[in-house]
Amino acid sequence: MAALPERGEVATYIPPLAAIDPRHFGLCIVTADGTVHMAGDALEPFSIQSISKVFALTQALGKVGEALWNRIGREPSGTAFNSIVQLEREQGIPRNPFINAGALVVADVNLGGHEPRVAIGELLRFVRYLADDDTIAIDEAVARAEQATGFRNIALANYMKAFGNIRHAPELTLGVYFHQCAIAMNCRQLAMAGRFLMHGGRHGRAGARVVSALRARRINALMLTCGHYDASGDFAFRVGLPGKSGVGGGILAIAPGRASIAVWSPGLNTSGNSKIGTLALERVAEATGWSVFGAG
Amino acid sequence: MAALPERGEVATYIPPLAAIDPRHFGLCIVTADGTVHMAGDALEPFSIQSISKVFALTQALGKVGEALWNRIGREPSGTAFNSIVQLEREQGIPRNPFINAGALVVADVNLGGHEPRVAIGELLRFVRYLADDDTIAIDEAVARAEQATGFRNIALANYMKAFGNIRHAPELTLGVYFHQCAIAMNCRQLAMAGRFLMHGGRHGRAGARVVSALRARRINALMLTCGHYDASGDFAFRVGLPGKSGVGGGILAIAPGRASIAVWSPGLNTSGNSKIGTLALERVAEATGWSVFGAG
Amino acid sequence: MAALPERGEVATYIPPLAAIDPRHFGLCIVTADGTVHMAGDALEPFSIQSISKVFALTQALGKVGEALWNRIGREPSGTAFNSIVQLEREQGIPRNPFINAGALVVADVNLGGHEPRVAIGELLRFVRYLADDDTIAIDEAVARAEQATGFRNIALANYMKAFGNIRHAPELTLGVYFHQCAIAMNCRQLAMAGRFLMHGGRHGRAGARVVSALRARRINALMLTCGHYDASGDFAFRVGLPGKSGVGGGILAIAPGRASIAVWSPGLNTSGNSKIGTLALERVAEATGWSVFGAG
Amino acid sequence: MAALPERGEVATYIPPLAAIDPRHFGLCIVTADGTVHMAGDALEPFSIQSISKVFALTQALGKVGEALWNRIGREPSGTAFNSIVQLEREQGIPRNPFINAGALVVADVNLGGHEPRVAIGELLRFVRYLADDDTIAIDEAVARAEQATGFRNIALANYMKAFGNIRHAPELTLGVYFHQCAIAMNCRQLAMAGRFLMHGGRHGRAGARVVSALRARRINALMLTCGHYDASGDFAFRVGLPGKSGVGGGILAIAPGRASIAVWSPGLNTSGNSKIGTLALERVAEATGWSVFGAG
Repeated sequence: MAALPERGEVATYIPPLAAIDPRHFGLCIVTADGTVHMAGDALEPFSIQSISKVFALTQALGKVGEALWNRIGREPSGTAFNSIVQLEREQGIPRNPFINAGALVVADVNLGGHEPRVAIGELLRFVRYLADDDTIAIDEAVARAEQATGFRNIALANYMKAFGNIRHAPELTLGVYFHQCAIAMNCRQLAMAGRFLMHGGRHGRAGARVVSALRARRINALMLTCGHYDASGDFAFRVGLPGKSGVGGGILAIAPGRASIAVWSPGLNTSGNSKIGTLALERVAEATGWSVFGAG
Repeated sequence: MAALPERGEVATYIPPLAAIDPRHFGLCIVTADGTVHMAGDALEPFSIQSISKVFALTQALGKVGEALWNRIGREPSGTAFNSIVQLEREQGIPRNPFINAGALVVADVNLGGHEPRVAIGELLRFVRYLADDDTIAIDEAVARAEQATGFRNIALANYMKAFGNIRHAPELTLGVYFHQCAIAMNCRQLAMAGRFLMHGGRHGRAGARVVSALRARRINALMLTCGHYDASGDFAFRVGLPGKSGVGGGILAIAPGRASIAVWSPGLNTSGNSKIGTLALERVAEATGWSVFGAG
Repeated sequence: MAALPERGEVATYIPPLAAIDPRHFGLCIVTADGTVHMAGDALEPFSIQSISKVFALTQALGKVGEALWNRIGREPSGTAFNSIVQLEREQGIPRNPFINAGALVVADVNLGGHEPRVAIGELLRFVRYLADDDTIAIDEAVARAEQATGFRNIALANYMKAFGNIRHAPELTLGVYFHQCAIAMNCRQLAMAGRFLMHGGRHGRAGARVVSALRARRINALMLTCGHYDASGDFAFRVGLPGKSGVGGGILAIAPGRASIAVWSPGLNTSGNSKIGTLALERVAEATGWSVFGAG
Repeated sequence: MAALPERGEVATYIPPLAAIDPRHFGLCIVTADGTVHMAGDALEPFSIQSISKVFALTQALGKVGEALWNRIGREPSGTAFNSIVQLEREQGIPRNPFINAGALVVADVNLGGHEPRVAIGELLRFVRYLADDDTIAIDEAVARAEQATGFRNIALANYMKAFGNIRHAPELTLGVYFHQCAIAMNCRQLAMAGRFLMHGGRHGRAGARVVSALRARRINALMLTCGHYDASGDFAFRVGLPGKSGVGGGILAIAPGRASIAVWSPGLNTSGNSKIGTLALERVAEATGWSVFGAG
């Protein structure tokens, strides 16, 4: 690994993430025919963090459909993942479902008047179904640590509550959010869970319909324009695939019709996205010609 | 036309644009095999305005290569096309080459120490070459009107000059910019000029190389994430193709490997993009399955 | 009252304030020789709300001295009283002690590791001492209502906690803040409590020293530049006296060396300051020549 | 001078200012009885720069009266002197007449359809009259240097022109502005010119009326809340007098009814105000008890 560029810094805001060895690297590619390619620590679980926003968004769209967009925008934010500035200017409507504020509204939708553990259980079952793997679980130590230090997210939720864009008690919505971020998966599970976005909304090439083809395309579009916070443009420029990163060092990337790819390397770049993970995806895209922006 | 939704308002900031009949509609699709499909006013010339930023960017990358990105970012701006706020926060570095500030830096690069008319002549020849059409010309009445009313662009150029990110006298750089915006093309010419972005950088399927395949992909990526100002996310969500709009009502959209599409309808939506043009592209993408985010 | 201009709207964000009759008007002027002039409902108690920030600031300066300014700025904010935007740009340091964010840091200082009710008790005793009136009390219904709806303040406190500029658990600091805002006083009590700012820091003309003369001047300076949120400049322009307003419709104004003035009229202007109260102070200043900016 | 704190940096954006010896220090105090006290380089002329905004504002109020406030606000900006951000949010209306944008609107009012040299001549005569000194002149080398490097001001003027808040051709308005900034005065002339603000609008204690007493108070109020850009609050806190600084190192401060004070020391603090000048005024105010916020 000596020839690789510097690995970046692991997230340190909670002890369970700070303790991760930065030398981990895992990769799993599931191609359209169902073949699974794995490399490195592809079976080592990690905290998926913001990658959970893709599954939570899919769940929320299933509940309320396009009405979701009355409460969340669909535009890149131009600001950091946890920025509160944009919310003041735009009256409590988050720019998109992948910044923290947007994901909190999604969690509020998914809560739907139930107990937080009901909503969390439902999301967990959905992810297990997508991945065909019932062993996926929540890392309670991570969830507790998020809760204990998540002052900025608490601020975001209460701020939107002041505008009426959080419907439940903020602490309940936050409970859902902190737990969904604490889902632990390995690269294999994550790549499997992303298959429905490769297959136009189907669970496998000829599988049951998870979402409509139109919805799958739209989720991919949101991942491409908003999936990497204020480095989304750079990710599109370099990798050319819809992708969603998490501060745990994971990235889920989709080559529509071709592959679902999960990569994990805990060191982050200055925008909070996996440094080596992004580089690995850039090389995969270059080698395979899978960029959505053209071959060759 | 009665069944169509409302057409939007034509741009009124300069008389030559305000005088355009909003009922115009033109469409041209050039597919990968070179077939040209036209509908409506596809041979009627219009002011391409900001669509020129795609060609000017290509020209600038040819001159200075990736060093261009030292002076311009590659991220969606999250703000309107003519916003100056972001420039103050980010010390005169525009967010991307498709907002006005970024396009002014591109014009400054293309000026390269020459007279404005030299740089403009060079760009015009490049566009004619791309479109295989030597009749493409600049509408001098539009150029003069832009110059007479372009106070916000004059402000942007001088503001970046204060940060040292405009190298020439601002009025020279602005001269290049105002003239490039005044290029008049019809849908056929525009779709033809966009072929190199469909063909991985080649002038036609087996044609000469205009830019590398990597560069063509990257320009497509920038068009997708930044091509419609603060409605870029919405365009990606609805149409799913790299595209660049102009305030004259034109849009150039690229289906990599499949088609180059130009549409024109002068009425604009609230984000300053062609209202009917966006709708037409949404329907074309739906009917053809050309979205980069998946078929079906 | 028919000849008076429109009275403005009473604050409606909590029921106890929304229920106040907008026709109330009270005025009390205590001059340097100790004479008390009263008019209208000068003995009717009202919720002093943000006027409490003056007393809390004085208390905090007594505890930590000028070190307070490491955690709070001294500049007008240029934004609304409950804005969170400035905090993001300036890393959790509020612009001044009179916007809500700054007052929360002041409350955090006053909390000082004790129970919220200890800090509140101390502040209440300080205000009673300043006013020479032990009947001043907290309106518990107002305090509960603030707590139940104060999502924006909860957001501000948690946001600053994320930057480390709130030292206690945010709910404890908020408890102090919500209770201090719920102090009920009448115009007479308020004007009496403001005497130390008229008398160069003394409790009455020849009274005991409450704060140094320098500190009294500085508190007056802060009231003049920051006491009316984003209408502070306008208040200085029209009235010409240091003043602090509250959303309950009260204003405390100081004519240094001459008078302490309290006015109350519940209807607010668009900046959240008492409409008739401001007008009354403008007329008092005009009639008396008490403006700090010159006589005649 | 060795015991004095560090002197700050002289302005370097134009050669004539960069060449000034930072060791200069001048002070002139004109008291209410007309006595003139001088110290140091009080007869050495310097570039008054933004202090000219006080005289230009007075001139503009004389031309259009309170209607001026339809085009300019009266609030502290919360941002730097040359910020453009606030203008975008507030549609081309500058926050106050002492930030550059506001002073440009004032210059536009003073231009009044005439040639720039007419407006400049009128302002110069007004300043000479206020100071009783016909030797006051414009430093043409400074004016030319301002014009050659004033890209940010050119940006501001064109930006407001786009909103219709500059009425003349921007280059004409800028011509007035650049020349007014280049007025050279010494401390004695400046303190003399400020007398009308000490004397409630009169030219000397029993002199002719320059402006009404109300207008004099209001100009003083604007100087106090807005006269030192984003350090206005700090100046009020420390000095407690209405004041206006210039980047040439001068400050004019007014003790209403008591004194007009001019100080000059070319080294600037990080907010662009004279470092030693501010300190000197702090000491003068402390020693004399002239603070508007109370004696003692």
